[in-house]
Amino acid sequence: MSSVATLRQRRQRLARHCDRPILLWSGARSPRNFPHNPYPFRASSHFLYFAGLSLERAAIRLEHGRAQLFCDAPSPDAALWHGETPSREELAEIAAVDAVYPWAELSDRLQDVATIAVQDAATCRHQSELLQRPISPHGLPMGIDLEAAQAVVMTRLTHDAAAVEEIRAAARTTIAAHLAGMAATTTATREYEVRAAMEYAIAQQHVTCAYPSIVTTHGEVLHSDRDDGVLQSDDLLLADVGAETRLGWAADVTRTWPVSGTFSATQRAVYDIVLAAHDKAIAAIAPGVEYRDIHLLAARVLAEGCVDLGILRGRPDELVERDAHALFFPHGIGHLLGLDVHDMEDLGDMAGYAPGRQRSDRFGLSYLRLHRPLQAGMVVTIEPGFYQVPALLRDPERQARYADVVNWDVLATFNDVRGIRIEDDVLVTPEGSEVLTVALPTEPAAIEAEVRRLNN
Amino acid sequence: MSSVATLRQRRQRLARHCDRPILLWSGARSPRNFPHNPYPFRASSHFLYFAGLSLERAAIRLEHGRAQLFCDAPSPDAALWHGETPSREELAEIAAVDAVYPWAELSDRLQDVATIAVQDAATCRHQSELLQRPISPHGLPMGIDLEAAQAVVMTRLTHDAAAVEEIRAAARTTIAAHLAGMAATTTATREYEVRAAMEYAIAQQHVTCAYPSIVTTHGEVLHSDRDDGVLQSDDLLLADVGAETRLGWAADVTRTWPVSGTFSATQRAVYDIVLAAHDKAIAAIAPGVEYRDIHLLAARVLAEGCVDLGILRGRPDELVERDAHALFFPHGIGHLLGLDVHDMEDLGDMAGYAPGRQRSDRFGLSYLRLHRPLQAGMVVTIEPGFYQVPALLRDPERQARYADVVNWDVLATFNDVRGIRIEDDVLVTPEGSEVLTVALPTEPAAIEAEVRRLNN
Repeated sequence: MSSVATLRQRRQRLARHCDRPILLWSGARSPRNFPHNPYPFRASSHFLYFAGLSLERAAIRLEHGRAQLFCDAPSPDAALWHGETPSREELAEIAAVDAVYPWAELSDRLQDVATIAVQDAATCRHQSELLQRPISPHGLPMGIDLEAAQAVVMTRLTHDAAAVEEIRAAARTTIAAHLAGMAATTTATREYEVRAAMEYAIAQQHVTCAYPSIVTTHGEVLHSDRDDGVLQSDDLLLADVGAETRLGWAADVTRTWPVSGTFSATQRAVYDIVLAAHDKAIAAIAPGVEYRDIHLLAARVLAEGCVDLGILRGRPDELVERDAHALFFPHGIGHLLGLDVHDMEDLGDMAGYAPGRQRSDRFGLSYLRLHRPLQAGMVVTIEPGFYQVPALLRDPERQARYADVVNWDVLATFNDVRGIRIEDDVLVTPEGSEVLTVALPTEPAAIEAEVRRLNN
Repeated sequence: MSSVATLRQRRQRLARHCDRPILLWSGARSPRNFPHNPYPFRASSHFLYFAGLSLERAAIRLEHGRAQLFCDAPSPDAALWHGETPSREELAEIAAVDAVYPWAELSDRLQDVATIAVQDAATCRHQSELLQRPISPHGLPMGIDLEAAQAVVMTRLTHDAAAVEEIRAAARTTIAAHLAGMAATTTATREYEVRAAMEYAIAQQHVTCAYPSIVTTHGEVLHSDRDDGVLQSDDLLLADVGAETRLGWAADVTRTWPVSGTFSATQRAVYDIVLAAHDKAIAAIAPGVEYRDIHLLAARVLAEGCVDLGILRGRPDELVERDAHALFFPHGIGHLLGLDVHDMEDLGDMAGYAPGRQRSDRFGLSYLRLHRPLQAGMVVTIEPGFYQVPALLRDPERQARYADVVNWDVLATFNDVRGIRIEDDVLVTPEGSEVLTVALPTEPAAIEAEVRRLNN
């Protein structure tokens, strides 16, 4: 299907969820240390979804399946500094809109219009001024903006063929990045050298990272932003790195590999448990299945594995009910993936949680980002992990609560396992699922072979 | 000198310019497509200068040479997601402050305090709320904030030894990046492949780019943000790429090299003119010299060269007076360099222009970013260029105005020269100047040798 047809279908789908005109801004560059030195431009995902192009200072107005684009032709001064850019008419053709207007005419077409806040402050202020109500990326939308957000969520929750193709492209680049990371490992001396090699593989494809890369021998720090650690030969290296296509579609992949190219027996034993949780979770994915049940299934497999290793004592079901698994697996099994790595998380839990559902306050469930029945066309991540987080394991309250189920002496024998995560991107299909990142190995022997092969 | 001594000296220097307490915020991450997916953190340059560490959600209060740091210890939840971080006391030691307080106590120490707006919207809102007046990164500061900004400018205008060491470190990484770019050129097929190789060389040193890289065969687009062009063997490639140290200090370097490894005769002829302007401008740098005179000197050398090639007709001095050189060199000869690539440009022209001076509206001077007498300890860029910008050269009004001085037929014979720039970073010394980026060749034969050597 042509991109024109795709964009028109998206607008038709939106119209089925909302009668009202919706105006979506693309946003503007955010300043770094001074206004003329901005961060790279990243258009709002909602704009990208319906406009299909990355264009600064633009907006698309959607109503009854029709689309109008608002943007300015570049100024003569801009031509000096930024060169020739496409005309408004050329942009209108790429975006397959029904009409295109100068930016200034936006203010004449605001009657009854709903919107979604963009992330950059300057544009958000502009949204508030034009619509004469507070529009903020913090907190949930209200009134007609809430209606619009719900309609956009319903439209974006499942992906069309063009979107899946984009995610596949992001996945291909991401796989290349992880292979480059494995290749860089045995010659690198610091974590950031591996990270640099992985991000280079992404930049070579003329795309960017979808999120801040995590490349660390301290996988137990879940969102580590330190990457200056020395690589020791008995370390595991956890790499959570994903590419984003030029139209904004993301992949999100984690692999954990031994710096030396060989897992120790203890590392291998825990890796196998995480891999079992990963495989069984993926095998359970199908339309209609509750994603939370997949989370709980993975938790049970992890608990079972810990019992088998002697780290935990008790019946796996009961361990999960008591959240004992969460001592080692304190996050959710995954999340929606699309134009955002946590898709539509700019709207809080509106996309991740079905209407009427809310976050649990259970330790083992509170970090779950997705709590909906799965539908064909959704893409989700599956990312079980095992971590020894000092802040959790040394917490006296938790130690007391789980005194009867944790065998601390056995756990101590696994002290060369600080953090393992295995994460893939999975499309829900009518028949079950398809792993979009399947070309990157997960089997420990295959991973060892990759690390060693690439270094010999 | 230890970093502790450096930081204390900086605060003493500030105190000599301002009696009033000044509170400088570090800022916070700006959101990219959703709040939990931010751009990389970059602390405010003013905070970095006086605190000497990159720390999110912090502020430093400076008064009479003494310093207080405000920041929070990480929450237990943060320990799970972000790991162990230094305690407040450890941070206080790194920043060499006289006292450290929890973030919440900031609100008790605001009497008569002046500040400078940070760039990220969330922190700027916080500044306004606490100080109960509008604080904005747009527009110039007012009242006591203007006094504070002027004092900070006076303090930061010339660099101490520690700052120069940081810029030297940024320069070394930048030179490695340019050599990597030359090495990547003859095997690359697209501009972005060379850009990726240059940025990889920067990331391998665990630092970042100081500004968005320009790597283009269309050097005539001064701030090109397109990099998907195909490299043709008769193209020149212009690369304006600079590294920034972890403490925020920048380098800013441009080289232009032939994709094939060999300049054509026409490319070489124009390159030699730009290089002559570059060399003569640098030779003229010394304390007390007006930077605008260096700009005009470079303009005259370029005009002379164009006359020698037959592109321009007339006396060089008169050509410069008529701004005819600006047809081919429409920007300024350079700018201040320091913690920002255009140092302190968050304060508009306050740093770049001496008190009482304003931008000229002359075509050949209006883009000059620095108009002060040079002082020992300043670091400036010197970056003459020659460009054939269609928006300028095809402009009927300019064509008419310069009809008598441009030989369009001769110019047409140089159509394989779209854009050349040569940029170095120069420290003003008591004796004259030192080129901090001198290790990267500028001579055409040396450049050709680098491109070819690295590919054989």
